Order: sequence, then structure tokens, then C-alpha cells
Amino acid sequence: MTVLPRPAARARPTMNDVAREADVALKTVSRYVNGEQNINAAMAERIADAIARLGYRRNLSAASLRPGRSSRTVGLVISDLANPHWAALARGAERAATDRGYLLVTGSSEEDGARHDALVDRMLDQRLDGLVVVPPREPGRPWSALVPPVPPVVFVDRPLDTPGAHAILADDRDGARAAVASLVRAGARRVALVGDSWLIPAMAARREGYRDALADAGLPDDPALQHDGAHSLTQAQELVAGLLGTPAGGAPPVDAVFAANNRASLGALHAFRDAGRRLPLVGFDDFEAATLLDPPVSVVAQDVGGMGAAAVHLLLDLLGGTADVPSRVVVPTTLHLRGSERP
Amino acid sequence: MTVLPRPAARARPTMNDVAREADVALKTVSRYVNGEQNINAAMAERIADAIARLGYRRNLSAASLRPGRSSRTVGLVISDLANPHWAALARGAERAATDRGYLLVTGSSEEDGARHDALVDRMLDQRLDGLVVVPPREPGRPWSALVPPVPPVVFVDRPLDTPGAHAILADDRDGARAAVASLVRAGARRVALVGDSWLIPAMAARREGYRDALADAGLPDDPALQHDGAHSLTQAQELVAGLLGTPAGGAPPVDAVFAANNRASLGALHAFRDAGRRLPLVGFDDFEAATLLDPPVSVVAQDVGGMGAAAVHLLLDLLGGTADVPSRVVVPTTLHLRGSERP
Repeated sequence: MTVLPRPAARARPTMNDVAREADVALKTVSRYVNGEQNINAAMAERIADAIARLGYRRNLSAASLRPGRSSRTVGLVISDLANPHWAALARGAERAATDRGYLLVTGSSEEDGARHDALVDRMLDQRLDGLVVVPPREPGRPWSALVPPVPPVVFVDRPLDTPGAHAILADDRDGARAAVASLVRAGARRVALVGDSWLIPAMAARREGYRDALADAGLPDDPALQHDGAHSLTQAQELVAGLLGTPAGGAPPVDAVFAANNRASLGALHAFRDAGRRLPLVGFDDFEAATLLDPPVSVVAQDVGGMGAAAVHLLLDLLGGTADVPSRVVVPTTLHLRGSERP
Repeated sequence: MTVLPRPAARARPTMNDVAREADVALKTVSRYVNGEQNINAAMAERIADAIARLGYRRNLSAASLRPGRSSRTVGLVISDLANPHWAALARGAERAATDRGYLLVTGSSEEDGARHDALVDRMLDQRLDGLVVVPPREPGRPWSALVPPVPPVVFVDRPLDTPGAHAILADDRDGARAAVASLVRAGARRVALVGDSWLIPAMAARREGYRDALADAGLPDDPALQHDGAHSLTQAQELVAGLLGTPAGGAPPVDAVFAANNRASLGALHAFRDAGRRLPLVGFDDFEAATLLDPPVSVVAQDVGGMGAAAVHLLLDLLGGTADVPSRVVVPTTLHLRGSERP
């Protein structure tokens, strides 16, 4: 049993019913319902009363069918809503959408191209006004393969190779450079890079920043120190456990770790705990417990909530036909040195 | 500039166009588009070709206007999508919705009744098929005040006082009882309860479980040990910092902490770090870094993803008219003892 009635098959009151009940012109009801302000106060009160009496409700689903009207709903395709990084991005996007009277539909691709494409198709079927998209690690079909009309799309975190595509990006390269420079300043000479696939543009950019910092310090760019297999916390943990052991063939040991995302940071911390010893560490992406650990974990923080909000604002500006919408927004990162960068 | 064309004002191809192009009956196209399987293979191939050539796309937004058809979109109103607890719930709900061909719209009430009501109104305006709702701490208008038709609603985490309302709940009382019993077994006699407002039903249930464990052990139920002011991490931190000091008036000191949600656990851990000393601690809700800390933090874990999924499945069963949909589902909790429960 449920306390709330199922939608009944009875007729819903229309704007015409409201106009009749309030004894005003249909056009006035329409202006009232669409939030216009310059309506005679007495009329507005009669309309409000009529709406309450009849239980009239706007049908935005119907409005979206009329040419030039919109569903006032935008879609967000991310990797995994349960990951705090993406949840923070979704929250920023949701807040921006709500502030501008839009609803936000979310979907998690799990980094799988086919799943991502199916989500995009489902959102296009629904005639959403526009999409904010984090392209998956395993790409599916190219965007150019979509049959028009395709609504405006803003990419986040991972730009596509498509010229002119709108994208919101963190300053990954600069952030990584600052992180690795802090390890080198603290004495590190053989900094391991632990990251996810270099096919992810943000990862590739962080590797560039890692190399920049080594070059700045006159240190060699050693591919043997650069690991792209940490797709999960567990993989990062195993990888860093290996780095803590004695290197094969008499190679000099690793003396610091740059963890290129929050999974990699947590994996490294688990490996340190298991081994009972640690290496100097700086991670990309802040995480809730970073300041609780001993030593507190130094990180490069992205403003992910701000990136989600910026993406939705850019998308809605595109939809609104605002002139001079930038095609690329790069959001700066912040280095928080808390102690873990030192031996 | 954008690489993706804005929706054009040109006519979209219809199912009739597809039927003509494929030289099959409209009814067959309709069956194909609705996913029916028993269609002649040659016909299905002709229809698929015609759809690709014309760029036909189903208009689910239009479908939702026809009586008996649905938008295949459900709404989720939670407290805050950026909180990992709610993000995990949203992810479970999203996965269940996707698995059943539905989209999920999310909205964060920030525990504010007015904001919550505005989100519900916005979702009802959009004619979503149903809602999954976590009622806010500060209640807004009663559900009975909504003008019908109201679609089916499933409440999560916090039941309403409305008889017969569908709700998915964690076994808060039993989980809290097990947590506090573990502290008492490890020697605690004066266990502080640090939680959020008792007006939140889950909090009230956890306090009942706390009292059960004390009663089981023959310990007094002392209101001075029960704190409901930890609405944020910072408030929990200040509260626990106070507990670590010398009690006023010569009262015996607190000798353990039961943190009734993940904010309270993190606040307690921050206070321990600041003071350089700790008390035995068990928290309600698991968190990512719990196993990284020294000692690892013991928790009562809820299957929040499972609760989100259960809520959507129950909602879609209601929508589908499935008989015998339970009005209340209680999801068990799990106690993970990791060491922090001991002095």
C-alpha cells in the first residue's frame, strides 16, 4: 500500500481552465506562469488563487515539444558518481543548474565507451537541452558519428581532439609540475609517477608537468619511473608495494612518489601502511582524510565543484545564445604542502 | 565557436518517414523502436538502415505526454551530492535506473525544507514518473499538502510519520547497539554519543540502539553524554575537543565515543589529532580512509548503494503495478571492528 495516489487517468487542469476560473486572459496566465513580473497585482492574486483551487501545474514536458521551448533539463555523463571526485563535480553542476532553473540528469559511464555512448543516446532520446560530458578512458564512437541534431555539449576534465569543442579543464600540467618540484626541493632524485592510462588527456598533461619539474631541476626523464597501470586503488597499492621493495638488477631505489590521482594516493598510502614504511608523497586531488593522516598528505587540489559549475554555466550560456562564450576554460590548481612531501 | 550544431528548426524525421523509407508498416516500426524482439529479421534490418539513413530518433519527451506512457525518468532528492555517503546512495539509484532503462535526475536539498520543496515542485512540473526522497532535517510542507496527481514516492533513510508510505531504511538501531556494545566490551563505562539532531529519525533510532547497549550492560542512560549538535564536521570536532578536556564540576570523564555519522567520526578524529590523544571510537557509516588511520577506525557500515538501488527498484515496481510491493524495507548493517574500539 502507498499513501500517495498513482497518477490518475483524469484530465489535468489546463491554463485555459485557470484563465476561466480567474477571469483573466489566457495570455496573462501564460505570462504569470512563465514568471514575468509586470502583471497587475490584483490579477496575479486571482491567478494564484485559481491555480491553487484547480491544482494546475505547468507541464514542462509538453513545453519542451514546442519549437524554441526547452525541457530545462541538462545531462551530465561522468565516470562514477560514487567516487568523491566526480560526486563533487556533479554537485557543482547540480547547484549551477538549480540556480538557473534547470534539472540535472546524471549518468556514470564507468570509463566504458559503449556504456557512455548508450547514456548519451538515452539523453538525446529524452531531448535534453544540452550535455556536460567527461569522455571515458575507453573511447566509444566519435562525436562526429552522431546524427544531428545534437544539442550543445561541454566537455570536462578531458578535452577531445575536436577543434573548437567547448571544454573545462584543470591546469593539470602546472599542478603536477608544482607537486613534483616540491618533492625535488625536499631532496628527492628518483620520483616515481603513479598514474592511470596516458590515453586520458589529464593524465598525459600531468606526466608533462612531472617531466617539466625534472627538467627544471636537471634530473633525467626515466621511463622506468613512470607507471600508467594504476586504474584502481588496488592496482596502485600493488604498484607502490613493488616500488618499496629492492629494485631488480641493482637499479637505484625510488625515493619519492607523485600519485597522479586520488585512487593512486590512497593506494600508495595503503602500501605504506602494509610495509610499515613510507616514501615522500604528493598526490593530485585532495581527499577528505588527507589532513588526518600522519604525516598529513600534501596534494595538488583541483576545484572540481567549480569546474562542474563552470561547465553548466558555459552550457547554459551557449543555449541562451550568449555572445563570446569561451571555447576553453582552464581552472587553476592549488598546492597544499602538509608534510608528506618530506622524507 | 562550437563543433556541435545547435538544434536546427528543420523538421525531424518521424516514424512514418521510417516506415515509408523501409517499406514496412508503421506498426512494425513502432514495435521495433519499442524493443520488441519477434520481428522478421529482414524487416528489422531494413528498419535499422532506414533509421540510420534518416537520422530518426525516438522522442521520449513526446511519448511521456500520451496517456499511459512515461517519461522514463525518475527523480532523487538527497541532502548533498558532494557528501560521499549520499553520492554512494545516488550511484546505487542511478545504476538501478539505468539497468531498467530509466534516467535519474538528482537534486540536493542541503537539509533545507524550502529548498527541498522547490526541488520536488520542479520535478513534478517536469512530470517525472516517480521520486525517491530523503526528507530534509528541517521539514518543509507536509506531503499531504501537495495537490494531486502526485507520482509514486519512496522515502529513503528517514521514514515519514505517514502510515503506509514506502520507505527504505537501514537497521540504525541494531547497528548502533552493536557499535556501542563493542566499546563496552572493550571496557568503556561512559560512552559519549556524538550525533546530529534527534529530529532526524535515523539519529533517533541510533540513540535508541546506544541506549539498548547501555541497558544490556547495566549502565546508566545519562543525557549529559548524549550530544545532538554535530551538524557539521567542525561542530563535531569542537564537541569532541570539549569531551577530551577536564569535565566541569568534577564529573567523571568520558571514556569512549560513539560517532553517529561519518561527519561526527571525522570530527572526532580531527579533535584527537589536535589534542595528541584519542579515546576509543566506533563510527556509524564507513569512510574511505578508515583503514588508513592508526589505529584503523571501527565502523558500522550501511549498504547505502544497495539502499539507493532498492529504492529505485521499489519505485519502478510500484510504477509497473507489481503486486505485493513491500511498504518498508530494512537493510541490515555490518560492524567492522578494526582496533579503534579499544583504549
